Amino acid sequence: MIIVLRPEATEEQVQHLLDKIEEAGLTPHLSRGIERTIIGLIGDERIVRNLPLEAFPGVETVMPILKPYKFASREFKKENTLIKIKDFVIGGNEIIIAAGPCSVEPGDVIFEIAHTLKKMGVKMLRGGAFKPRTSPYDFQGLGEEGLKLLAQASKDTGMAVITEVMDTRQVELVYKYADAFQIGARNVQNFNLLKEVGKTDKPVLLKRGMSTTIKEWLMSAEYIISEGNIKIILCERGIRTFETSTRNTLDITAVPVLKDETHLPVFVDPSHACGIWKYVDPLSKAAIVAGADGLIIEVHPRPESAFSDGAQSLKFSKFEKLMNDLRPIAQAIGRTI
Amino acid sequence: MIIVLRPEATEEQVQHLLDKIEEAGLTPHLSRGIERTIIGLIGDERIVRNLPLEAFPGVETVMPILKPYKFASREFKKENTLIKIKDFVIGGNEIIIAAGPCSVEPGDVIFEIAHTLKKMGVKMLRGGAFKPRTSPYDFQGLGEEGLKLLAQASKDTGMAVITEVMDTRQVELVYKYADAFQIGARNVQNFNLLKEVGKTDKPVLLKRGMSTTIKEWLMSAEYIISEGNIKIILCERGIRTFETSTRNTLDITAVPVLKDETHLPVFVDPSHACGIWKYVDPLSKAAIVAGADGLIIEVHPRPESAFSDGAQSLKFSKFEKLMNDLRPIAQAIGRTI
Amino acid sequence: MIIVLRPEATEEQVQHLLDKIEEAGLTPHLSRGIERTIIGLIGDERIVRNLPLEAFPGVETVMPILKPYKFASREFKKENTLIKIKDFVIGGNEIIIAAGPCSVEPGDVIFEIAHTLKKMGVKMLRGGAFKPRTSPYDFQGLGEEGLKLLAQASKDTGMAVITEVMDTRQVELVYKYADAFQIGARNVQNFNLLKEVGKTDKPVLLKRGMSTTIKEWLMSAEYIISEGNIKIILCERGIRTFETSTRNTLDITAVPVLKDETHLPVFVDPSHACGIWKYVDPLSKAAIVAGADGLIIEVHPRPESAFSDGAQSLKFSKFEKLMNDLRPIAQAIGRTI
Amino acid sequence: MIIVLRPEATEEQVQHLLDKIEEAGLTPHLSRGIERTIIGLIGDERIVRNLPLEAFPGVETVMPILKPYKFASREFKKENTLIKIKDFVIGGNEIIIAAGPCSVEPGDVIFEIAHTLKKMGVKMLRGGAFKPRTSPYDFQGLGEEGLKLLAQASKDTGMAVITEVMDTRQVELVYKYADAFQIGARNVQNFNLLKEVGKTDKPVLLKRGMSTTIKEWLMSAEYIISEGNIKIILCERGIRTFETSTRNTLDITAVPVLKDETHLPVFVDPSHACGIWKYVDPLSKAAIVAGADGLIIEVHPRPESAFSDGAQSLKFSKFEKLMNDLRPIAQAIGRTI
Repeated sequence: MIIVLRPEATEEQVQHLLDKIEEAGLTPHLSRGIERTIIGLIGDERIVRNLPLEAFPGVETVMPILKPYKFASREFKKENTLIKIKDFVIGGNEIIIAAGPCSVEPGDVIFEIAHTLKKMGVKMLRGGAFKPRTSPYDFQGLGEEGLKLLAQASKDTGMAVITEVMDTRQVELVYKYADAFQIGARNVQNFNLLKEVGKTDKPVLLKRGMSTTIKEWLMSAEYIISEGNIKIILCERGIRTFETSTRNTLDITAVPVLKDETHLPVFVDPSHACGIWKYVDPLSKAAIVAGADGLIIEVHPRPESAFSDGAQSLKFSKFEKLMNDLRPIAQAIGRTI
Repeated sequence: MIIVLRPEATEEQVQHLLDKIEEAGLTPHLSRGIERTIIGLIGDERIVRNLPLEAFPGVETVMPILKPYKFASREFKKENTLIKIKDFVIGGNEIIIAAGPCSVEPGDVIFEIAHTLKKMGVKMLRGGAFKPRTSPYDFQGLGEEGLKLLAQASKDTGMAVITEVMDTRQVELVYKYADAFQIGARNVQNFNLLKEVGKTDKPVLLKRGMSTTIKEWLMSAEYIISEGNIKIILCERGIRTFETSTRNTLDITAVPVLKDETHLPVFVDPSHACGIWKYVDPLSKAAIVAGADGLIIEVHPRPESAFSDGAQSLKFSKFEKLMNDLRPIAQAIGRTI
Repeated sequence: MIIVLRPEATEEQVQHLLDKIEEAGLTPHLSRGIERTIIGLIGDERIVRNLPLEAFPGVETVMPILKPYKFASREFKKENTLIKIKDFVIGGNEIIIAAGPCSVEPGDVIFEIAHTLKKMGVKMLRGGAFKPRTSPYDFQGLGEEGLKLLAQASKDTGMAVITEVMDTRQVELVYKYADAFQIGARNVQNFNLLKEVGKTDKPVLLKRGMSTTIKEWLMSAEYIISEGNIKIILCERGIRTFETSTRNTLDITAVPVLKDETHLPVFVDPSHACGIWKYVDPLSKAAIVAGADGLIIEVHPRPESAFSDGAQSLKFSKFEKLMNDLRPIAQAIGRTI
Repeated sequence: MIIVLRPEATEEQVQHLLDKIEEAGLTPHLSRGIERTIIGLIGDERIVRNLPLEAFPGVETVMPILKPYKFASREFKKENTLIKIKDFVIGGNEIIIAAGPCSVEPGDVIFEIAHTLKKMGVKMLRGGAFKPRTSPYDFQGLGEEGLKLLAQASKDTGMAVITEVMDTRQVELVYKYADAFQIGARNVQNFNLLKEVGKTDKPVLLKRGMSTTIKEWLMSAEYIISEGNIKIILCERGIRTFETSTRNTLDITAVPVLKDETHLPVFVDPSHACGIWKYVDPLSKAAIVAGADGLIIEVHPRPESAFSDGAQSLKFSKFEKLMNDLRPIAQAIGRTI
């Protein structure tokens, strides 16, 4: 950590800082320049992260040198984390596609979807049983009934099931039925929920929040890892910006940045990123060439009557065309789908 | 709701739309202009909010006419909602000040703070027992021990206690000790938590999320109201923007916009909005003249040794000066503190 | 245009609105619903865009139905605009690459660059003679001397030259030496400059501003077209968001959105979008599969001694590898480079 | 400047860096910690700002220590800059109000406005003769005719005139008629224009751009100062964020931040910040208590027929009430209006 002092900082203020740093068990290193005096901290700066050094009299700025996350960092673990689910691996050379409806609906729809997608090469079936909806008056999901339908569809097809968990009280239940947890954008800093899934041994797809920086997002992953679960898939799903022509703005650059910063696999959710079915196609392609390890896409046989997110869901035919288009692109970058 | 059709929309597409709208129980009203054909929906458009009309073939845009929130709206309830806690009222002519440390710390600090603030005119004591921290390695709060300290400080001074609840499993516990719940920015769309506090009869201070629009924020309030609890205080605490010279950007305009849109009282949290103690003073003043019904401010006797957020905490002397400066300003706009 | 009235709007207020609309030469169409009364305007709503209808007493919201741009819209011109420069065409099946240094530097560097890039398949040579720099103390470009060097490099290699124009007073000079104008992000709403290049017959690459919406950007294109010049290339170069791990956030979705909204060709500048050379590679690939008609990339033989933007410039070897990687990807989507 | 090296940086990479820094005339200071090695630069780091150090092999991050602006900084000049125009001073204890229509219109309106505002205590008359409009089809201003009307209104009333200059070619003309230049938000980084007004001796009100950071804004001021003109008034007018309930988001915190960072006076434009007349009142009050030295407000006798920005213009009666309300607030903070 580097502490830059104001030009007018007094000797007394400097001494006070040096004392406090030593009290905390670190060694301060004072360096007087022409325009600024700076103090370098030798030792593990994480110790003093809670000291409000930037508010000490005489301090101009405080610059951390170490990254706040540790176990999630590429520095800690050089090689890619591979996550095995059923008969496939996430984070390897193969690009994994998860697809399915936004919400699990009553009846046979989920089976129709599962059987169709399975044939198209989809490895994971997505579908929400607990739905975070902006309005309390919108469909809130089927709950356990939905989980049961997903589990049955998984049994029938051999696909893995991924589904959202919204509440610490639901973790046990979702664990029982699903192969992987999904943590939604709105819960990316629901720290109690992160801890709870961190105590399990099932993979967690952690979506980025609408205004979460990459650093904060990795700190959320760190919460899960710190409880013992390293099977985390980071999923970029668009951030909130001033542009309103699409629901969110896909931060495509986050994909290569994450591949540098962390060993965890990276997915992209093109459906939520744009909110409009016709842009799912170009965004899926962009995600793959930018280095994503997988995609999670909303597909529905009859989007017009979907219980939620119909506007961004692909019909089977559109999705099949996309799968077919993705294969030569994956090949061009030396990967498979 | 108004549906604008693409210039190239076919008769068949138009008919399909008309059919779907009628199926849903609404009456469509077709109007053919020179450059565009539009369909107006007569009846409660909320019925079709889940129909993905914008993805129907031939549709260019869909414009809702009604606001998505109902019970939170000024249209539904014209007069200001007044919230009585102990011997004071929030939302009336008096501006209510809540203050206290970021975290409740072990020992006597909270009593020192409570007694001092009480004398300065503070009505509510704030302090976190459950702390949402970006890092899992930071102090996470004292838990029930902290709640007990708060309750004792309240008993000693007569101040009301407001404290954060982060998890549905904590609601019962916090209810036992506190006079009001605080829902933090990161949980503004933790819908299960909103429902849970909505089932209680204690006031809820609902902070705005870092990237929550005013509309979405009012929808979160609607979640609480829809469960039966209308005692909601909306608290603006800064939004995330591109500017990095302060931690967040206080959206001061949200105050008068909310006073127009809703009957609920509005607070401002200047401490989190800027993250730097020296700007708490001008922002507090700005909040009040913009129409805020109250402030929630971080105060600590020795910010340098606070367990969290020391950089944005005011010392007693600074806070006392602020209180003294706020009174003539409140008077100039016809209110009291 | 649709005008939604407040529930409490009086008859007098409604009548006042109807009168004003008729005065302006349009026909109002009143429709009274249960919760809201609305007025539809029949005729060209652009006539009343300057009437501050949203501030009229009794008005809740005003919703335009037509897009504000006309000649730039896909609605006005269905087929793609093709821009011929020298022996190549922008906007057709071939993806066009422009590359070169950020600034033209004194000496032979530009010739070294031009000859090398020409061999790698680059069609356009980029390089700034007038440089918009955040600091007045930074290198401001060689001015006319730089333009002469570019023109000579063009003559030697047959490449087209594209270079930035920053000031209305420079238009004539730049016209003399360059094959295409570049308007930088900071000048996207420098309306006098837009008009001035609009009066010429040379292509204009119009970069998006850091916080320009797609609508506003197309309005800036409309300024150029309205003066007679339709040869416009829109260039997405990253927008400003809260994320700080890269200089800007590439809005990759803007590419397919623009292809829907306008007939003009779309380029992407991956170098400025991220500001870091190592992410230029994945972003270039993403741009192409998302539908971009071309790329503009910063290349320098010795980035460490470049006069500006060295951190985002690719060395020859990295750029050559990128070009080789892009070809099979272009082929996979049925295009050529 | 502090350079943080990657843990895996080689000795050769370190030596290469040290050599380059010494070549540039600075003294590097190497310090090897447990987790990171850092290099401190002794001397004026501005010398190496153009070296792309962050792209050197082995470098993790580069942290500047000095601020990029010099003459605009409070460090360079401790005392407030006072700007004298006619018989009043900007930047002193008195809060100065500038007001007037968005555009100067043909006929007598500007005289009606000037005489009325003069009586209400307004010191500066604002009004645009050159108008930056998003659409080329909107009213573009009266040009020199408008400047003449403003000059005549100034002569009649004794008020100072402030008006926008959009193009380097207009500087001479505007200088002839106006007492102060206004540079609009869209031109905040039109560097040629900044230099041109920097060569004159008249005050410049420099609006913040929609997505300009405070640092960049001060660098734009530095452009003007570097040409010799220090009479700069910084004007906060709202930034672009994700919130859409108002046109922009007033960054009220920018006011006290600027008062810390620079000696230049600070104005606020509440009209453009919100775009809605009814919020001009609370935002004006907030600006003043936050420390603004002045306000610039749009006023029009008949907003419904204003040539531009009618929705955000105050009628005389509303403006008069605002002026009357502002006086006791100014008094409460020890200032006058």
